[in-house]
Amino acid sequence: MRTGTPQKLSKKLQTSQPTKKFVFSFGNRKSEVKGDQKELLGGKGNNLHAMTRLGLPVPPGFTLSTVVCAYYYQNEKTYPKPLENEIRKALKQVEKHMKRRFGAAKNPLLVSVRSGARVSMPGMMDTILNLGLNDVTVEGLIEESHDPRFGYDSYRRLISMYSDVVLGIHSSHFESALEDLKHSKGVTLDTDLKAEDLKTLVADFKQIVKENGKRFPEDPWEQLWGAMGAVFSSWMTPRATTYRKLNRIPEDWGTAVTIQSMVFGNMGQDCATGVAFTRDPSTGEKKFFGEFLINAQGEDVVAGIRTPQPINQSSRQVSTVDLDTLENAMPKVYAELVRVYQKLEKHYRDMQDIEFTIERGKLFMLQTRSGKRTAAASLRIAVEMVKEKLISKNEAILRVQPEQLDQLLHPGLDPQAKKEVIARGLPASPGASSGMIVFDPDTAEKWVHELGKKVILVRMETSPEDIHGMSVAQGILTARGGMTSHAAVVARGMGKCCISGCSSLKVIEEQKKCTVGNLTLDEGDWITLDGSTGEVIRGTVRTIVPTLNPYFLELMSWVDQVKQLEVRTNADTPADAKIAREFKAEGLGLCRTEHMFFDPEKIDAVREMILADTPQGRQKALQKIQPMQKQDFKAIFREMRGYPVTIRLLDPPLHEFIPHQDEEIRALSLKIDVSFDRLKRKAESLHELNPMLGHRGCRLGISYPEIYQTQVRAIMEAACELVRDEGFKITPEIMIPLIGDWREFQWIKHFCVQEIEMVLTKYQFEGVKGLSYQIGTMIEIPRAALTADQIAQEADFFSFGTNDLTQTTYGLSRDDSGLFLKDYLDAKIYEKDPFASLDPLGVGRLMKIAIQDGRKVRPDLKIGICGEHGGEPASIELCHSLGLDYVSCSPYRVPIARLSAAQAAIRNPRKLTQARKKTARQLRKKRI
Amino acid sequence: MRTGTPQKLSKKLQTSQPTKKFVFSFGNRKSEVKGDQKELLGGKGNNLHAMTRLGLPVPPGFTLSTVVCAYYYQNEKTYPKPLENEIRKALKQVEKHMKRRFGAAKNPLLVSVRSGARVSMPGMMDTILNLGLNDVTVEGLIEESHDPRFGYDSYRRLISMYSDVVLGIHSSHFESALEDLKHSKGVTLDTDLKAEDLKTLVADFKQIVKENGKRFPEDPWEQLWGAMGAVFSSWMTPRATTYRKLNRIPEDWGTAVTIQSMVFGNMGQDCATGVAFTRDPSTGEKKFFGEFLINAQGEDVVAGIRTPQPINQSSRQVSTVDLDTLENAMPKVYAELVRVYQKLEKHYRDMQDIEFTIERGKLFMLQTRSGKRTAAASLRIAVEMVKEKLISKNEAILRVQPEQLDQLLHPGLDPQAKKEVIARGLPASPGASSGMIVFDPDTAEKWVHELGKKVILVRMETSPEDIHGMSVAQGILTARGGMTSHAAVVARGMGKCCISGCSSLKVIEEQKKCTVGNLTLDEGDWITLDGSTGEVIRGTVRTIVPTLNPYFLELMSWVDQVKQLEVRTNADTPADAKIAREFKAEGLGLCRTEHMFFDPEKIDAVREMILADTPQGRQKALQKIQPMQKQDFKAIFREMRGYPVTIRLLDPPLHEFIPHQDEEIRALSLKIDVSFDRLKRKAESLHELNPMLGHRGCRLGISYPEIYQTQVRAIMEAACELVRDEGFKITPEIMIPLIGDWREFQWIKHFCVQEIEMVLTKYQFEGVKGLSYQIGTMIEIPRAALTADQIAQEADFFSFGTNDLTQTTYGLSRDDSGLFLKDYLDAKIYEKDPFASLDPLGVGRLMKIAIQDGRKVRPDLKIGICGEHGGEPASIELCHSLGLDYVSCSPYRVPIARLSAAQAAIRNPRKLTQARKKTARQLRKKRI
Repeated sequence: MRTGTPQKLSKKLQTSQPTKKFVFSFGNRKSEVKGDQKELLGGKGNNLHAMTRLGLPVPPGFTLSTVVCAYYYQNEKTYPKPLENEIRKALKQVEKHMKRRFGAAKNPLLVSVRSGARVSMPGMMDTILNLGLNDVTVEGLIEESHDPRFGYDSYRRLISMYSDVVLGIHSSHFESALEDLKHSKGVTLDTDLKAEDLKTLVADFKQIVKENGKRFPEDPWEQLWGAMGAVFSSWMTPRATTYRKLNRIPEDWGTAVTIQSMVFGNMGQDCATGVAFTRDPSTGEKKFFGEFLINAQGEDVVAGIRTPQPINQSSRQVSTVDLDTLENAMPKVYAELVRVYQKLEKHYRDMQDIEFTIERGKLFMLQTRSGKRTAAASLRIAVEMVKEKLISKNEAILRVQPEQLDQLLHPGLDPQAKKEVIARGLPASPGASSGMIVFDPDTAEKWVHELGKKVILVRMETSPEDIHGMSVAQGILTARGGMTSHAAVVARGMGKCCISGCSSLKVIEEQKKCTVGNLTLDEGDWITLDGSTGEVIRGTVRTIVPTLNPYFLELMSWVDQVKQLEVRTNADTPADAKIAREFKAEGLGLCRTEHMFFDPEKIDAVREMILADTPQGRQKALQKIQPMQKQDFKAIFREMRGYPVTIRLLDPPLHEFIPHQDEEIRALSLKIDVSFDRLKRKAESLHELNPMLGHRGCRLGISYPEIYQTQVRAIMEAACELVRDEGFKITPEIMIPLIGDWREFQWIKHFCVQEIEMVLTKYQFEGVKGLSYQIGTMIEIPRAALTADQIAQEADFFSFGTNDLTQTTYGLSRDDSGLFLKDYLDAKIYEKDPFASLDPLGVGRLMKIAIQDGRKVRPDLKIGICGEHGGEPASIELCHSLGLDYVSCSPYRVPIARLSAAQAAIRNPRKLTQARKKTARQLRKKRI
Repeated sequence: MRTGTPQKLSKKLQTSQPTKKFVFSFGNRKSEVKGDQKELLGGKGNNLHAMTRLGLPVPPGFTLSTVVCAYYYQNEKTYPKPLENEIRKALKQVEKHMKRRFGAAKNPLLVSVRSGARVSMPGMMDTILNLGLNDVTVEGLIEESHDPRFGYDSYRRLISMYSDVVLGIHSSHFESALEDLKHSKGVTLDTDLKAEDLKTLVADFKQIVKENGKRFPEDPWEQLWGAMGAVFSSWMTPRATTYRKLNRIPEDWGTAVTIQSMVFGNMGQDCATGVAFTRDPSTGEKKFFGEFLINAQGEDVVAGIRTPQPINQSSRQVSTVDLDTLENAMPKVYAELVRVYQKLEKHYRDMQDIEFTIERGKLFMLQTRSGKRTAAASLRIAVEMVKEKLISKNEAILRVQPEQLDQLLHPGLDPQAKKEVIARGLPASPGASSGMIVFDPDTAEKWVHELGKKVILVRMETSPEDIHGMSVAQGILTARGGMTSHAAVVARGMGKCCISGCSSLKVIEEQKKCTVGNLTLDEGDWITLDGSTGEVIRGTVRTIVPTLNPYFLELMSWVDQVKQLEVRTNADTPADAKIAREFKAEGLGLCRTEHMFFDPEKIDAVREMILADTPQGRQKALQKIQPMQKQDFKAIFREMRGYPVTIRLLDPPLHEFIPHQDEEIRALSLKIDVSFDRLKRKAESLHELNPMLGHRGCRLGISYPEIYQTQVRAIMEAACELVRDEGFKITPEIMIPLIGDWREFQWIKHFCVQEIEMVLTKYQFEGVKGLSYQIGTMIEIPRAALTADQIAQEADFFSFGTNDLTQTTYGLSRDDSGLFLKDYLDAKIYEKDPFASLDPLGVGRLMKIAIQDGRKVRPDLKIGICGEHGGEPASIELCHSLGLDYVSCSPYRVPIARLSAAQAAIRNPRKLTQARKKTARQLRKKRI
């Protein structure tokens, strides 16, 4: 009756490829697969097939497709019937190519078994080498190689690896046996052990297996099936699942398994193994770059027991300046390797990360894949490959991961520096910095301004009252809150690093200390935050300040030619606006006026307004605020000259502006000369059980129209005076928050328009003419989206406030979800944190409804997004496909958003309707 | 550019009736309108036309349609061009019928001008009588009536009424002139003034008008247009708008104006005026019932200056036992009146409220309309009219207003009793009762149990910790919270009266007192609550206990034959379930298990569970709770024997179960022997900024599976043991709250099913076989509705939790909205409180999406509603039209829901698809 989980996996694969064939051979320049089949063969397998087809020297083998993995998990870990036969056939072919036989006493074929998913998942999956060795075949290997040491070494490696991976016997058992042996022989290095010693070790290892109640299969065929099963099983190990979660790799992709004949880099001095990058992965410079080891197996290079040698002059490091190069030691092989890498780069049209083995002077290619690279390298490679005509500009744009740009825009920790990580939180705002711990904003301000110290503000959670402390701190660390908590949002806006939701941190603010496990940190202790990784580090760590690289500027200039979304910024201050303009923001999509209210100059008047019990009393206080707000708006308009500016009217509940602790109330009481009791009563009367769903947003405008009237007047007067005095052309966009019903909007618009017309009339006499304005709304609660057709009859534009919209659509508070969101991500109930990446099914569907219904009524309706999602690549892609006109994000994310928008436009270009074109024209016109 | 409000009004009217004609005449048995045209003519006008067509003696006149009103408001208070001509023509016709001329010196025609909307709005609109009188025509009237007193009296009435209504001169000016005159003449009654006196008064009145800067128009034609304008304007007076808001009458219906020739009941002893009901409006008994006054105008009957006489023997009251009847005084006229009323009742097939005037022995009918009646009368009339074959059973069902049934089911205040209303809140739970004020639940319990007192629990707001106090109180009064606040919901569940959101009440719980304005009430003071009106009354008022009337039972038996929705109940205790079954609830749609957790027996174990830091610790505490929960469920299953029972797993955030005030924490600390610090820390760690959007519902089940496992075990063991021991057939329905993603549901369902299967296996050995169960979900956050297709693949049923769904769809906390919802209703931004009546546009649209998408995947998906809306008539109608299978509401609302469901089915019968029929069959089957 119940249908269980939607079984996407099998359907997807069944439709893309007939499942009749499960095994695909490669070798001798031929592959049973045509062209790219990453989904089917996994990345590693696919590349081996491709390299084979390119005519490169690849040891022959065959790949079990990902369909087998799907079948395996859908059928209680069993295999499809035809599999066994197909494997036998494929193995025969390998035997033919290699002129060896699997399990034969003479010239035995040894194979490796490796996993390979669609994308590279380094270190996540298990590999077994030397498969096919047993007491008989090892003698064949020795006979052939004339090297008993090599034979027994390979054999003991197989036993320990197989036992660990397939039989589940922890490798420590074997390691300690090895240590015991070395000890008894009085040697320190593995390489000092003799062939006889290793032969003993093989026997010891087998004994260990027995003692653990298991049996090491002598039958190579049994070894093979055991290894295959282990690979498939490893797809679901916690380590693999975690990696996938972190890297957002769908569960249902599955892994392929490649079985390939072994070649040996450790059969003597004419053997070697190495890895190389076709360009420098840290700078992107066009030079062949790699290292190798003579007489070694691949894992030795990675393991770092011996220092690898540079493959050529340009790969030399300070530490390897004296070592011989491959170019020098084996010039013929090196020359072939150069030909190979050039062919590969040309074929893949990307920087490659290759692995090779030299067996007795013959080069074998074992792997090629796109090389990982730093942000700087990524940009340089992309741009230079365009100049080399290897790729198009669009391809170059797609090559750079938007999130990587963060590395370029924020200081980062010196990767060489040592660091003692004491806790981990959410990487809420990128960058890194060190400072002395302070626990309250006042101390932060004092220490910075009066004592000249660098501080990190550590809080349970921040609130708007902390802004002054946050703005002087090097970084912010909070125990609570998610990616869109107050701390996170404000820090990103300020381009300041921040770690939020660091739940292992206990902050005891009254006592001015915090603890992590047994460690106690006091005020004044130094810590370092890495806001890009979420690491909290004890003491100071050297940071590296980024310089904007020329490749960045070049790539970004291409980006702007292809993107179809406009990219605006969320900025509350002229300083933020200035940064955003430097990053080429094309407008201001969200100016939160409340942050101005917290300004020390204004906060007293704001409090006076809140304490007033009559509209007249509020008016009086607002009259003090109005001229200051006007100056704020003027300063922002100036920074954004020529670009649209969207100003949101007051949004947060009033209680945020007044203190709640008795002590703070008493202090304020003395300061503003209002009795403690009255203040306390006001604080209590403003208290709400669920302030997020309370008296805030436009609801304030309904209850206290005079607040919005004052703000609107300040906006319009600022605009008029700039037109009058500084010759601006300007179209203020006034945005009403938290609308849920068209009548709400109409009611507020009505009195705003009255106010605006009064201002315009006044300035008309001073020569200000034709200043136009727009009044639009946030779409941030579900009902606004669901009744968008009605609202669009009144509103000039929509801007999705996806923080709130996500909150209400999920019924999930972003301030409180930190406590249990981890449970959800761990249990894989949520694939991503919905506050970090837009949920396409729920929130996205509401957005779609709002867009369709809104534009049905008003085809040229301008629609944007100003939630935090506006700076997240996957969300921007969704916004693009939904047909939004613009995204708006914090200043430092503007380049990321521009790049993401361009990528979205390349992947899925939009056709513009007439109405859309008109809106786009208008958006452009505004920039004059 | 901006389109303004959607102009429904004009469109609607333009399509239903061509606007070419604005004026419709009636008189001499003919009307220019065919059949019922209430929308066009208003209720009053329509009835005059109808009575005319029935051949009844109606003074001739004409009606300006509601289209004129629409035009008036859409065109800056101007009239359509053709109107003047049409009025002239219609007036001519009246003059012809009456053989009088408007404004003529001899035999002048006088007219009345009355408003009339589509539904009766008593007292809300203004009327002007005697129009057409001036210094000239008054002499004509006197000549004709031979009664100067009558002439001048009519004239001075016109001047004062016209001045008040049209010219805006307050009537007090005229009243004091009248008082002065009486004083100077030494008389006390108006009737003691002579014709000469009244003639003076006419002059005085005109002087007053002049002094107020206005002019009384002598021209009758000008009088007429002034009066018409005043009627249209009165449609928008605050009084009228308020009445419409209270009675949910749309703004855009508009009013019609009827102009009718005057007849006079005050021209002498052969004249009279009266009102009558065709049946007794308070009992519904079939008897002609009314009163009249000799020599009086209509308003005199209502004004109550003279005691009206009974029209017949059966209309006599204690106070009118000595007065003469109309039957006796004017037998011929009475006989005609009887013929008229019988004709009217037969025509309208409903009890009529009629107004008549007798002018010189001739009967004139001035008005007929459906008579207002008590709930009891409403039922009796409906049922008896069916027996009289006057109406069908379906019509009878439609005649009773579901909300009226509340009157029958709850005690009410004696309408005769005096009462001092000191405050007004929301009528949160009907019924009335008196008690002594207490401010905390412990005192409530103590006073009731130990001292035997009756108490009213007065709180800022209630929380689940107050349940024990609420359950012993007579009624509950809270200063905060809306119609679905905790207090309201729980009180309705308990069938106890409650007033919530009484914002003028200041509760100072620590000081054990509260204030309303200047009045202070202390603990122990008596108050009375009327939960049906929201009135808080000082002292005690006598209440009347209802008896279930036989007409109720008969009507309700018809109701069940036509309704298509199943009606279930929300009940948390066996007692509630029992009441609901008595009201014929067909199942239990929501059993909230948390209320059981607050049980004094269990609360300590619950707290122990919360304080445990490990799953094991929680298990241990839960093992104490489990057997108690099992007994709870058994008791409920027993009450609901044969009917489905839906049990919701734990929903509220855990912090609700532990105290937060230091004092309470200290008390608990001693009681359960846990340190104060630990308790305090736990309370703090559970604190959430927005608990409604926090760690609650299924999120608890994700973090602490053992809680849900325990509950599921208790449910299933209870069911199994009833099957084993008491031969039950039972299908428990387990409901998971707050689902927002199908994986969430799947995750929880998975471990629930494991638990259930273990229980079933265990009891299988004891002969329990084939017990089936269902696992379904609440749809109470928007994302659940938006992803219902995925959820339906897993869930056996949906139940809309519309309290939460409304909350998140609107982004509006029901606990906090009380403070500003009034602003919204006042500003007409919301037509209705969305927590009281389901919002069809937003919440309804989400429901529609969920239903369509859910049934696309699972056509036989059972869908119900268990939010508070499930008991509200308009919401039930929406649920019916959306295709729900059932509604569930608190026990006392079950009859209301049944009646509403039947009315919905009659108005808009549903066709059932095959899948729906199957579900309906299954629902029925469960009742065996």
